[in-house]
Amino acid sequence: MRQIEVCFSPELIHLHELQGKIVVVVDIFRATTTMVTALSNGIEEIRTFADKESCREMQSQGYLVAGERNGKTIEGFDLGNSPVAFLKKDYSGNKLAMTTTNGTLAISKSQEADEILIGAFPNLSATIQYIQQQDKDVLIHCAGWKGKFNLEDSLYAGALVKSLESTHLSEDDGAMAMKSLFEKEGHQMKQFLSQASHAKRLQNHGIEHDIDICLTLDLFNIVGKVFKGQILKKI
Amino acid sequence: MRQIEVCFSPELIHLHELQGKIVVVVDIFRATTTMVTALSNGIEEIRTFADKESCREMQSQGYLVAGERNGKTIEGFDLGNSPVAFLKKDYSGNKLAMTTTNGTLAISKSQEADEILIGAFPNLSATIQYIQQQDKDVLIHCAGWKGKFNLEDSLYAGALVKSLESTHLSEDDGAMAMKSLFEKEGHQMKQFLSQASHAKRLQNHGIEHDIDICLTLDLFNIVGKVFKGQILKKI
Repeated sequence: MRQIEVCFSPELIHLHELQGKIVVVVDIFRATTTMVTALSNGIEEIRTFADKESCREMQSQGYLVAGERNGKTIEGFDLGNSPVAFLKKDYSGNKLAMTTTNGTLAISKSQEADEILIGAFPNLSATIQYIQQQDKDVLIHCAGWKGKFNLEDSLYAGALVKSLESTHLSEDDGAMAMKSLFEKEGHQMKQFLSQASHAKRLQNHGIEHDIDICLTLDLFNIVGKVFKGQILKKI
Repeated sequence: MRQIEVCFSPELIHLHELQGKIVVVVDIFRATTTMVTALSNGIEEIRTFADKESCREMQSQGYLVAGERNGKTIEGFDLGNSPVAFLKKDYSGNKLAMTTTNGTLAISKSQEADEILIGAFPNLSATIQYIQQQDKDVLIHCAGWKGKFNLEDSLYAGALVKSLESTHLSEDDGAMAMKSLFEKEGHQMKQFLSQASHAKRLQNHGIEHDIDICLTLDLFNIVGKVFKGQILKKI
């Protein structure tokens, strides 16, 4: 049977072997949820940037640019880091440049993987189905919060481990712990996560609707994948 | 109300503020359990060493020396890293030098704390009682396994967070997750942990009795504390 393991922070990813594996990068609030939502609503490709200036420069190449700092859309940018915004119209034909801190770091530190997927609750089932069609071990790479463990990414990890238990063995301690946590809290995710530090930060920014999307299962039937050059596309 | 938080690995401890806090260092299988058992059975002080040669040199100063590599007592050492061994006779009047890898690292990386305690299940209640008498925030520092999250240290963290919920708020994501995990698995710890990677390693070494002690609550009514110069004593 294939294996599944969890890494809770980009600061611990050097302890894991990535080669030959599918790495699922997770930044539930909100980077990976926004990416998956954008790809589901017409965005043809996404490039991610750690710094806002490199991101801004993509405007001259015809990209829409998206990003926030301290919860506010960066001045001159087309969009923030909100999945809701991408539901408001059809973005077919557009390309997107996004700047996020935790999410971009996790993607760039996953480059040795055989495949990198973008994980979010709204496309959980599609991601599971894709993974089960491959014959590869899985590593869930939680973006965390400034290097620390965070609750929402970890709970997603638990959901994925639980959903893959028929094909992927969780001998890894982190995978076992998160599977058990998801078994306990999965039926009341929003209530449980409302205590999470990041959810509290987001509530202060008045984006409850974003949180709803971030925690809703199977809105979209696409898989987000990172291709060479850190370009994200749907498959 | 005071705060409680969890750090899952010495490799993440730089992300946490230690000053003014009680840091509880945890290495359930088996370093901190052995330390607490030794202090309960007469050992007057314990010094810890990352390397075996520095530890061995303490023999000339009259210390008993204890340590294992790959699950076997180091050649020429008086004891291994087994709590059971310290239950077999009264060690009153003896001092101990111990070499452990994960545990020593976690202690040495906790030096900025206001107080460092040694956490283990056999003295959980005594540790709780001591903490509740102080007016300080708490950080649980899991030694982990070669830098990674491990199940037994994390479950102890959950037990401590749960036990302190009347006095210490768990706003930290790691503390919340582990409290919930302990609520689910705490009544069947041995069964749950038998799947853990480290427990499997220990089973291969035929030390089931050690595991029993490591997971038994409140055998000892002492608190293990680290004093200047990394000397452990009971209080």
